[in-house]
Amino acid sequence: MSDKVATSADARSSSLTRVDAARLSPRDLRAAIATEQWTDTTLGLGLGHLQANLAVVPREDAYDFLLFCQRNPKPVPLIEVLDAGSPLVQQLAPGADLRTDLPRYRVFRDGELASEPLHLRDDWEDDAVAFLLGCSLTFEAALLESGIPLRHLEADTPAPVYITSQQCRPAGKFSAPMVVSMRPIPAPLVARTVQVTSRYPWGHGAPVHIGDPAGLGIDDLDAVDFGAPPHMEKGDVPVFWGCGITPQLAVDGARSRYTFTHYAQHMFVTDRSSEADAVA
Amino acid sequence: MSDKVATSADARSSSLTRVDAARLSPRDLRAAIATEQWTDTTLGLGLGHLQANLAVVPREDAYDFLLFCQRNPKPVPLIEVLDAGSPLVQQLAPGADLRTDLPRYRVFRDGELASEPLHLRDDWEDDAVAFLLGCSLTFEAALLESGIPLRHLEADTPAPVYITSQQCRPAGKFSAPMVVSMRPIPAPLVARTVQVTSRYPWGHGAPVHIGDPAGLGIDDLDAVDFGAPPHMEKGDVPVFWGCGITPQLAVDGARSRYTFTHYAQHMFVTDRSSEADAVA
Repeated sequence: MSDKVATSADARSSSLTRVDAARLSPRDLRAAIATEQWTDTTLGLGLGHLQANLAVVPREDAYDFLLFCQRNPKPVPLIEVLDAGSPLVQQLAPGADLRTDLPRYRVFRDGELASEPLHLRDDWEDDAVAFLLGCSLTFEAALLESGIPLRHLEADTPAPVYITSQQCRPAGKFSAPMVVSMRPIPAPLVARTVQVTSRYPWGHGAPVHIGDPAGLGIDDLDAVDFGAPPHMEKGDVPVFWGCGITPQLAVDGARSRYTFTHYAQHMFVTDRSSEADAVA
Repeated sequence: MSDKVATSADARSSSLTRVDAARLSPRDLRAAIATEQWTDTTLGLGLGHLQANLAVVPREDAYDFLLFCQRNPKPVPLIEVLDAGSPLVQQLAPGADLRTDLPRYRVFRDGELASEPLHLRDDWEDDAVAFLLGCSLTFEAALLESGIPLRHLEADTPAPVYITSQQCRPAGKFSAPMVVSMRPIPAPLVARTVQVTSRYPWGHGAPVHIGDPAGLGIDDLDAVDFGAPPHMEKGDVPVFWGCGITPQLAVDGARSRYTFTHYAQHMFVTDRSSEADAVA
């Protein structure tokens, strides 16, 4: 998948500064995105609100993909499924339009990357089924608020991500190895890390694996498959979470008639408070 | 739905006593059920193990039903979906056969009750998709262990169940009002009740409503739609949970080509410890 990541960003740049964008409500931010005043990543924007990954498949593949989500909730936490053909969000941001309200998309046709547009107006299909999936931003914010350091943010790098030796439970044409992100956590804070992240099951939830990288088929933590090598400090334990790249691999492998996804880190900012559905 | 409940139990009775049956492991109990040595309810059997409700629909309706589950997790907590055509359980009790391993079934054809057999050998279809749904037995056991009284068990009656004025989120041909069960809880124990039941999201989880029956469209707690009127004691607060009759109403209303369900209280006893997936 990495070889498909575009190297040439769209020439047009955002007319808003990130500081201005960060001040906008989710609704106003989506309006700025729909009008292409904001075309950059959504990291740090809409703070306190749930952000979602997007996967859109044709109706004929929607059952298998829905089942794939149900069978693999840790790497593929499903938060909303739209009715077939509809780009209008019902629950997470009523009235939002998934054709325009993300800053950038990726469009695949028959399994091949076709374009990376700023909107889907020209690509949307009458039988498209949109899936909104949770992401790790929610629990990262909660960890920081709990005083748990996140080394990749301190170093201003993406988190290390690995393709593991564990297979997800397949569903029809969708299958993938489980992909995990890793965050080094000081040993005394590992239990607290489990407690905090358990509250967000729709945002990957509790870690899937703590310590022992070899148990996931990871021989060398520096040999990342995505993201950047970790910054481990003395006494840190590697803690692994299911990662949203898992469904991307599954969708890539299925070679559906068409697939639309968000462009990496260009996500859907919802109206839903990150805490609204937190457990206990 | 209540008028469809059979009044004539099958003439054959179980050759095991309930005391003997309660001593069996889930695997041995399922074997006794498959050989019709046990044809009665599964209440109190397989203690400490998850029990599941069953709903089987044709493949052409499986996507809508899966989506209905995803959209209404409190009343319809989905725990496993089998591959189309397969009656063999993969996760909750590997190798178990859903055609034989429940004590009694209900078979609907084109929306009409056709039979209430002890097995589905003659009814199973090549395109049948089986859904296993969580039930309230798990959290009731946990509440008792936490010292929280359950009035309906003290009175040896079924819990009161009400059809509410709230509609579930529909999905295709599946729609239903939310059905709730109610348990009167002493006011000082209501918070603990929330904590305990929150641990079992796949078993209806936290209450959907606490106090104020009118808010659910319930004018008179004694006017139950299913089960038995409640035994409220002084200082008790009515606490409401999503109820597994909700998907039954949805399945009834969909009038699929065929539908197979468990017979009330004759459930699927799994190998999974009730605590295995408890949250935090």
